Amino acid sequence: MKIALCQINPTVGDVSNNRDKMTEMVAAASSKGADLVLFGELSLSGAPLGDLVFHPDFCDKCFSALADIAEAGKECVTLVGLPVMAQDEAFNAVAMLGGGEVKEVFMKAMPSSRQERMVFSGIDSPEFEGADDGEMPAYTISVDGVDILVVVGDDMRFTDTLECFGRNGEKPDLIVNLTAKRFAHQIIEEDAENYSSLAAALSTPIIVCGITGGCVDTVFHGGSMAFDAEGRMVFKGKNFEEDLVMLDFDAREGFGRVPRQSLPVSSKSSKARHAYKAMVMAVRDYFGKNGFKRATIGLSGGIDSAVVAAIAVDALGAQCVRGVMMPSRFSSEGSITDSIRLAASLGIECVELSIEKMFSASLETLAPLFGESPFTVAEENIQSRLRGVLLMAVANKFDTLVLNTTNKSESAMGYGTLYGDTNGALSVLGDLYKTEVYEVAEYINRNGEVIPETIINKAPSAELREGQRDSDSLPPYDKLDVVLYALIEENMSVMDCAAECGVAIDTVMWVDRMLKINEYKRHQLPPVVSLSRMTLTKDRTMPVIVKY
Amino acid sequence: MKIALCQINPTVGDVSNNRDKMTEMVAAASSKGADLVLFGELSLSGAPLGDLVFHPDFCDKCFSALADIAEAGKECVTLVGLPVMAQDEAFNAVAMLGGGEVKEVFMKAMPSSRQERMVFSGIDSPEFEGADDGEMPAYTISVDGVDILVVVGDDMRFTDTLECFGRNGEKPDLIVNLTAKRFAHQIIEEDAENYSSLAAALSTPIIVCGITGGCVDTVFHGGSMAFDAEGRMVFKGKNFEEDLVMLDFDAREGFGRVPRQSLPVSSKSSKARHAYKAMVMAVRDYFGKNGFKRATIGLSGGIDSAVVAAIAVDALGAQCVRGVMMPSRFSSEGSITDSIRLAASLGIECVELSIEKMFSASLETLAPLFGESPFTVAEENIQSRLRGVLLMAVANKFDTLVLNTTNKSESAMGYGTLYGDTNGALSVLGDLYKTEVYEVAEYINRNGEVIPETIINKAPSAELREGQRDSDSLPPYDKLDVVLYALIEENMSVMDCAAECGVAIDTVMWVDRMLKINEYKRHQLPPVVSLSRMTLTKDRTMPVIVKY
Repeated sequence: MKIALCQINPTVGDVSNNRDKMTEMVAAASSKGADLVLFGELSLSGAPLGDLVFHPDFCDKCFSALADIAEAGKECVTLVGLPVMAQDEAFNAVAMLGGGEVKEVFMKAMPSSRQERMVFSGIDSPEFEGADDGEMPAYTISVDGVDILVVVGDDMRFTDTLECFGRNGEKPDLIVNLTAKRFAHQIIEEDAENYSSLAAALSTPIIVCGITGGCVDTVFHGGSMAFDAEGRMVFKGKNFEEDLVMLDFDAREGFGRVPRQSLPVSSKSSKARHAYKAMVMAVRDYFGKNGFKRATIGLSGGIDSAVVAAIAVDALGAQCVRGVMMPSRFSSEGSITDSIRLAASLGIECVELSIEKMFSASLETLAPLFGESPFTVAEENIQSRLRGVLLMAVANKFDTLVLNTTNKSESAMGYGTLYGDTNGALSVLGDLYKTEVYEVAEYINRNGEVIPETIINKAPSAELREGQRDSDSLPPYDKLDVVLYALIEENMSVMDCAAECGVAIDTVMWVDRMLKINEYKRHQLPPVVSLSRMTLTKDRTMPVIVKY
Repeated sequence: MKIALCQINPTVGDVSNNRDKMTEMVAAASSKGADLVLFGELSLSGAPLGDLVFHPDFCDKCFSALADIAEAGKECVTLVGLPVMAQDEAFNAVAMLGGGEVKEVFMKAMPSSRQERMVFSGIDSPEFEGADDGEMPAYTISVDGVDILVVVGDDMRFTDTLECFGRNGEKPDLIVNLTAKRFAHQIIEEDAENYSSLAAALSTPIIVCGITGGCVDTVFHGGSMAFDAEGRMVFKGKNFEEDLVMLDFDAREGFGRVPRQSLPVSSKSSKARHAYKAMVMAVRDYFGKNGFKRATIGLSGGIDSAVVAAIAVDALGAQCVRGVMMPSRFSSEGSITDSIRLAASLGIECVELSIEKMFSASLETLAPLFGESPFTVAEENIQSRLRGVLLMAVANKFDTLVLNTTNKSESAMGYGTLYGDTNGALSVLGDLYKTEVYEVAEYINRNGEVIPETIINKAPSAELREGQRDSDSLPPYDKLDVVLYALIEENMSVMDCAAECGVAIDTVMWVDRMLKINEYKRHQLPPVVSLSRMTLTKDRTMPVIVKY
C-alpha cells in the first residue's frame, strides 16, 4: 500500500483555508495512488486552540469541513486531526474518511500538556460517560489488508496499552501516530530515539505524521518520520516546512528495501540551528498569519537586537525590516557604528532617532515634582520607555510590528524596563539564555560574518547611565546562566544549585530572589517563542506576588 | 460540641506567617472551648499557588508547619488546608490535627477550576495509583461523638456521593466543607442558595469555612456559613475580612435554637457593593502583601480613574494616593477642573504634569521620518504612551505602584493604547463593563457626592485628538455592553446575539471582530482583578492570532 504523509502548516481557526490546502493535498496524494493519507493532530483547526474550541459553532464548522476532504479522497482512507464536541465537552480527535464520507472519529484518550488539558477532556474523565475506566481505547483500522493502530498525539505514552496488542497476538501491522509536537531544544533527536526504541520494543513499525508552523508563541517543527519493526529509521521528514511524502508499506515486507537512516544526534550546533529555524518560522508565521509584512526593531548595537534583526531578515526579507537606533547621552559610539555596520551587512534600512530631546523634555516636565533628587532607576527607565514610545510610533505609522529583543536571562532577572525593553508583538529571544543567544549568533555567522564581530565581542550594557555594564548588576552571564538553568529548567533548590554549580550560596539566593520578585514583569511580556520545555511565561507559572 | 470557624487571609507562600496566624487562632479557639477548629482550603499556603506547588521543599515546608498548629490545638481537632506531594504529584489536601500531631490527610478528589487543574492531580487521575476509579472517597471523622463528613472545596459538587451516605444509613451528622472561593458577581447569593438546597436535600447540616483576601487577580471573599438539616441558614460569616466564630453543634439537636437567617438576595446595589469591596480588598492586599504603601493614578477627569482613585483611598488611605493630571493640547478644561474637584473630595494630593513638551519633542524627533504625513493613530498613541512614561517615572521615583484604570468594555474592544493606557501593576476595573463602572460610582456616592457629578455625567472621551468622543469609535456603552455580555459571558453566536439583543447584525459582527483581533493587547495587560466568571485575561483564553 501507499501511504501519504502530509505535514501541513495550518492557521489557527482558518478552517476554510486549512481545508482547501488539505483537499488539494489529498487529491495530489490520491493521484499518486495513495491508499492511506495522513494529516497531523489538529491539522484541520490549527493548534493551540485555547477557548476557540468552545466558540459557538467552531467544532461544527471543523466537522462540516471534513466533507470536502472526504470527497477529494474517495479512493483512499484519510486521517484528519480536529477538535470535536461531545456531551458538551471538547475532545482532541481524529476523523477517518473513506468512500467520500466520515467513517469514524477517534478521540484522544488523555490530553497531556497543560494547554490541552485546559480545554480538552480525556475519555476517562469522570464527567464523560460511556468510556471504560483508565484504559486507552484501541483504534484499529484496516486498510488494504493492513491492520493499523491509530494513536492520537501523546497517547503514545501509554505503552502498556500499546504492548497489549503484541501480547494478545492481536498485534497490528503498523502503528500510526498523528501528532502536533511543540518544538523544544533536543526534541527532534529525543523523539527519534524514543520512537526507534518503541518500534523495536513492540516489534512493530511506526509512522509519525506531524504538523508544522508557528502559532504566536508555539512552533510545531513537524517531526514526521517512520521506523521499521527493528526500530531503524526508514524516513526522516523535513522539519520547519510543509511536506508531502509517499511511503510504500506492506504487511509482510514492512517498508521493504528502503535504505535505513542514522538517527539524528544532538550537538551544540544542531541545537543552535534548530532554535534559529524555529525562531525564523515563528516570526514568519506571526506576520504572515496576521496580515503584517514588515518589522521594526530597535538596534542598540548589542548582540540581542543583532540576532533578532538577522532572524527577521531571514523570515521577512531585508526590504521588510527597519532598524531604529535611538542613542542618548549615555550611548557609546559603538552603539551607532556597530548598528550601521549590522544594517549594511543585513541590507536593511536603518534610521537614527535620538531620544535626547524627549529625554530633556521629560526631565523638565518632572522637575517640579522631582526637584533636586539624584539620578536613579526612575531616570534610567524613562530612557528605555521613550525608546518604546518611538519604536511603537514608527510601527503604528507604517503599519509594521515591533519585534522584542529581551532574552531569557534578562527576563528571569527582571533586567529590563517594563513598557520599554519589554515592548513588542513577539518576544523572539525570550526563551534563550544570553549564552544561547551567542550560540545562535555563531550559527548565523557560520558561513562568514553577518553579525559584526565587534557586536559579538563587546561587553553587554544597557547604556542607561554613564559607563554602565550588565556586569555591574548581574553575575557574568556564563555563571548566571548556569545558575538560572539549574533553578528554572532543573527546578533545583538553592542549596543543591550552589553545590552543583559551584557558585556561592549568597549569589544563588540573590538570583533566586530576583527570579521570584520579577514575575510581574514577565506577566506583561509579549508572547515568547517557546524553545525550551520551561518557557518562563508559559510553563513556569508562579504567583505574581509570592513570599517564599 | 463547639466548632470554631477561622476565616483567615493567608499570603501566598508565606507559610511561617500563615502558620503563626493559625496557631494564634487555634489557641484562642481552644481557650474558648473549641472541640473542632476549621480553616479553609489551602489556608496554610495561600492560593492560588501555580507552580509554587512544585518548588523544591514548598510542600514539605507546609507539612512541617503543621506541627506548631497541632501543638497549639492539642485539646481539639483541627482541619487545615494545604498542598501535599505524593508520588511526585501535587494534591489539594486537608490535614486533620489532634493530640498534638497530624492524624490524617484527606486529598481533594477532583480539582475543578482550570487554575487548580494546571497543578493539582485528582485522586482518580490515571497516573495516580491506589485510588478507586471514579468515586469520591468519603472522609468521615468523629469528634465528640459527632460523625462529620469532610469535603474539600468543589468536591461538594459530587452530590451523588454525598447522597450515598443518606441512602446507606451511614448518614453523617454534619458535613464540613472547607473552601477557597474565588469571588464573582452573585456568587455570595448563589452559594447560599445552593448550600441551603443541598442541606435540605440531604437532610444534613452543612458548615462551610472559607478563606478571604486578595491575591493579585484573585479575591477570596470568605463565604463561611452554616445551614441546618432543613436548609435554613443559621450562620452567615463576614465577607471580605478575617473572622473567628464559634458555633454550638450537637448530633441530636443540630445547631439548637440559634435564630435562622434569611438568605442573601442579589440586587443591583448588592452587586455594586460586593464588587467594590472585592476591588478594595484586591488593592489593599496587592500593596500590603507586596510591601508597597502608596499608589499613583493618572486622573483624566473621567469616570474610570475617579472610581479607581476612590477605591485606592479606601484601600490605602488618602495620604497614600497621588493623582497625576497629564493634560495635552486636546484636553478639555473639565479634565483638569473635575480632577482637582475629585482630588479635593477624596483628600488626595494631585499634581499636574503637562505632556505638551514631551509630545512636541516626540513629533520633532519623528519629523525626519514621518515627514508631512497626516495626524493618525500613531500620534494619538504617542500621547497615551508619554502619559505612561510620566506615571511610571513618578511611581519609580517615589517607590509607589501605578494602578491601571482600563475597564472591561475598553479591554474587550482594544480601545486603549498598549504601553500607555494599559500600564500599571494591577488592573482594578478590567473585569467591569463601563456600565458596571457607573454602578460602582453610584455605590461610592451612596451617602453623598464623593465622585463629582460632572465626572459621572460627561460623555466618555480619550481626548487624543480634537473633539474626540468614545462614541465616535464605539457604539453607546449601554448597547455595547449588552452585546459584549452576550458574546463573552454567554458565549453566544453572532446571529443569536443580534436576535437576542435587538442589535443590527453588522454591529455585532464588528464587535465580535474587535474582540478577537485585540487579544494581543489583553495578553500584555497587568493582572486584572476578577469580578466575573469570565475575566478576559484569565477565563477566556483565545489564540493571540486567530482567523475565525
